[in-house]
Amino acid sequence: MVDFKMMRELHHQSNTKIVLLVLDGVGGLPIEPGGPTELEAAHTPNLDRLATEGMLGLINPIRPGITPGSGPGHLALFGYDPIKYGVGRGVLEASGIGMEVAIGDVAARGNFCTLDAKGMIIDRRAGRLSSDRAIPLVELMSEIQLFGVEIETRHVRDYRFAVVMRGEGLEPDIDDTDPQQTGVPPHPARALTDSAKKTAGFFNAWISQAQSKIADNPKANAITLRGFSTDPNLPQFPEIYGTRAVCVAGYPMYRGVSRLVGMQVHDFEGDRPEDEFRASADIWDNFDFFFIHIKKIDSMGEDGNFEGKVKVIETLDVALPTLLDLNPDVVCVTGDHSTPARLRTHSWHPVPTLLWAPATALADNQIAYGERACAQGSLGIFPATDLMPLMMAHANRLAKYGA
Amino acid sequence: MVDFKMMRELHHQSNTKIVLLVLDGVGGLPIEPGGPTELEAAHTPNLDRLATEGMLGLINPIRPGITPGSGPGHLALFGYDPIKYGVGRGVLEASGIGMEVAIGDVAARGNFCTLDAKGMIIDRRAGRLSSDRAIPLVELMSEIQLFGVEIETRHVRDYRFAVVMRGEGLEPDIDDTDPQQTGVPPHPARALTDSAKKTAGFFNAWISQAQSKIADNPKANAITLRGFSTDPNLPQFPEIYGTRAVCVAGYPMYRGVSRLVGMQVHDFEGDRPEDEFRASADIWDNFDFFFIHIKKIDSMGEDGNFEGKVKVIETLDVALPTLLDLNPDVVCVTGDHSTPARLRTHSWHPVPTLLWAPATALADNQIAYGERACAQGSLGIFPATDLMPLMMAHANRLAKYGA
Repeated sequence: MVDFKMMRELHHQSNTKIVLLVLDGVGGLPIEPGGPTELEAAHTPNLDRLATEGMLGLINPIRPGITPGSGPGHLALFGYDPIKYGVGRGVLEASGIGMEVAIGDVAARGNFCTLDAKGMIIDRRAGRLSSDRAIPLVELMSEIQLFGVEIETRHVRDYRFAVVMRGEGLEPDIDDTDPQQTGVPPHPARALTDSAKKTAGFFNAWISQAQSKIADNPKANAITLRGFSTDPNLPQFPEIYGTRAVCVAGYPMYRGVSRLVGMQVHDFEGDRPEDEFRASADIWDNFDFFFIHIKKIDSMGEDGNFEGKVKVIETLDVALPTLLDLNPDVVCVTGDHSTPARLRTHSWHPVPTLLWAPATALADNQIAYGERACAQGSLGIFPATDLMPLMMAHANRLAKYGA
Repeated sequence: MVDFKMMRELHHQSNTKIVLLVLDGVGGLPIEPGGPTELEAAHTPNLDRLATEGMLGLINPIRPGITPGSGPGHLALFGYDPIKYGVGRGVLEASGIGMEVAIGDVAARGNFCTLDAKGMIIDRRAGRLSSDRAIPLVELMSEIQLFGVEIETRHVRDYRFAVVMRGEGLEPDIDDTDPQQTGVPPHPARALTDSAKKTAGFFNAWISQAQSKIADNPKANAITLRGFSTDPNLPQFPEIYGTRAVCVAGYPMYRGVSRLVGMQVHDFEGDRPEDEFRASADIWDNFDFFFIHIKKIDSMGEDGNFEGKVKVIETLDVALPTLLDLNPDVVCVTGDHSTPARLRTHSWHPVPTLLWAPATALADNQIAYGERACAQGSLGIFPATDLMPLMMAHANRLAKYGA
């Protein structure tokens, strides 16, 4: 874990630019014994050049053996001990779409779902309801008013939305209403502490009104809520590291975690790596630290699509010169966790990591960016929270400690 | 060190089986520069197959440079920080032979020794007194009664026995009576704190009576006591990890440490690796986690017998298919410390470690289980306490941390 006090004392200004390029879920496994991983199978001449010139290693985002969720995985990359600094999913989702969640507010993430005639869930995502169908439903729900609390409801993406309640005496210690299975009804919002009972009551009243407003919809006739949480009041990244930091990410949740640590969040068009790199170019002079997030690698992993994951990595590699042409001083390529297509889910496997910094890196003898090359790299296996000080140092942004 | 709170939250049930195969003292050194270590010299086709398919690394049981005792070495393998969780030798010895040591009881390990006519120790182990000669002496000593305390005395093995005192106001802060050298008399039991003075008085009274009972024995005419200690009240392994855990070990001390962490201890016939694997097969369906302990590798190391240590490792390798035929999901082969035959004692050298888990391991490029192959392995050099979360993860027994 990063010593924030030390960072605040040692950081100094420099004209250098740092890029943290997060390939979500990049780590993988062979489909069959003896084969390559997704990353090893991909043709990636640009990443391999960075690997040849830079240093490789493996990071543990949380602890060895622990599979990271996306929130904790990103907090670790930003240098925050993800066990000390917990962030709820509701807050991540809401702040990701620009909703304000102040200390004392309670945010929840919502899903549209489908109930049968008996009130049992038959589809937890309402057939992956599309955004154009979800938006009018969210508009209906946003008309709901309750005495004693202010409510904001916004659509996020597809079948997902966020609800934020603001008022006196609200507490987020409420269990998810999503039972995480079909064939059973949604749970009510259940307070986990006495002081959260009032808040749970507000949410249950809201759920009841919301469901009566959408009851006639053939697919999305009910909702579930989860990740009840409030602003975690995190130390602020720009102040800790003395950088002007920006997030270039398309997905709400990564924008959310960036906003919570105090990064600027950049809006841009398109969702390909090329679009994100062009967007970074547009604001290159305005920031020192660029967190660029590539989502679809993880999505392919979660779909169990080995070849698809290879292709997205290759697309990223083709686009990479657009980023490198900006002449960054430090580029760190890593992930917030592994998502082997073979496992179809996040995993605990340490994440292949590349640190490129032509001015100060000592190249190891590895010539490709891949899991087994990284296991042999000169950075070793280390906690993800060590990356920020390393990036800062290679960007000439940290003073000597002691005389 | 393992975050027990996190383990308790994340562990879930699975049908998988984990084997922790501890080769006591497995790490070694070459007899002469340029030569192989004991493990490298041994012909071990089965271990080498596991190494080829699995992942290698080196563990530090306590801290780099620190030579582990057997108790701390095993606690670390079980995920307990051995500095935070100290267990006295007396408790280990007593609980290893099934004596109950409750909180507030005080246990000590005893040795028979030989005194000369002047009362000086001339043999600290009474010529390594055999069990058949020691047992009648322990029976004599077990007749001793003291007012105000209940005393239980039992033979352990060879020249060793255990004493447990039970009563009000007992304290274990007492220094060893064994001076660890010859030519001097045994120390009295000396209280290290005021509150332990009463207990030291009981032990001195007991020692005095015991020595008068055995004074005529030609070899074993006196005793020393060490490792005064009480129940450390350890968090319980099955509850932390959510596993049904069993110890398959022949030697009392390893059974003792297993009992203290709440494992079941299995009784079986025989003392060869083959016997332990057959014993594991007998109870295969009843448990999820098998701690199997192979003692004689360490014994050969302590005897300075390089070839003997090689042979015991080879015997273990020959027996290994009996274990592998049970189709475990995860096998971790490691040791609680190194015992190089060249040094004839435990050492601080990090311990060669192999983690085999066909469903989820990413094989590194190592093809043999040996010290130098492990130094090149993809697990790196890491604290022994990280092994439990890794075994749990590869056995699909841990949920994701955070959303």
